[in-house]
Amino acid sequence: MYFYNLKDVQYKKKREGVYFKSITGDSSQLTIIKLDPGVTTEHSHINEQMGYILSGKMELMINNKIKVLEKGDGYHIPSNMIHGFRVLGKEPLEYIEIFTPPKLQYDK
Amino acid sequence: MYFYNLKDVQYKKKREGVYFKSITGDSSQLTIIKLDPGVTTEHSHINEQMGYILSGKMELMINNKIKVLEKGDGYHIPSNMIHGFRVLGKEPLEYIEIFTPPKLQYDK
Repeated sequence: MYFYNLKDVQYKKKREGVYFKSITGDSSQLTIIKLDPGVTTEHSHINEQMGYILSGKMELMINNKIKVLEKGDGYHIPSNMIHGFRVLGKEPLEYIEIFTPPKLQYDK
Repeated sequence: MYFYNLKDVQYKKKREGVYFKSITGDSSQLTIIKLDPGVTTEHSHINEQMGYILSGKMELMINNKIKVLEKGDGYHIPSNMIHGFRVLGKEPLEYIEIFTPPKLQYDK
């Protein structure tokens, strides 16, 4: 499949307050993530991760450095580097994550 | 560098009507592209390409199949597959391209 009308695709629930929809390629994966206000995450994984903020505002920690990002900003998380998201404000955060290689948990 | 205030970064001109700004990772590359109304492209490359439409409307050809995509839609172009973009309407098209591996021409 080449074309994805993602705007018409419902988010799937990953866990409380965390929703996703994705396109899985051969080497990479494009995932749209929605985090509810107040949600925080922190982990690391072998997949390189890049991203772009579609709406909302967050505090992003990468390798213990912290910065506030909002709509139109982007980020790069090298393979295996610890990182965490914290949604700021009262609006959900919507952003794009690109994983290389694809993360199996989003390949559904 | 982990954090990119892309919203404050000026587009660079690739050719007439084609502008970009990008984040280059180790295995992948996130590029924001802006195409002026009327612009068309057609080519293929070894890099796998995935994308997401930020604004505007386009006709996308992948492997001789054609579909109209707009804000919130996405696409997947396998390695070496021919594809072409045609901007529809009077607004510029802004979209995200993810290349795996990175394209050297955007690594500036």
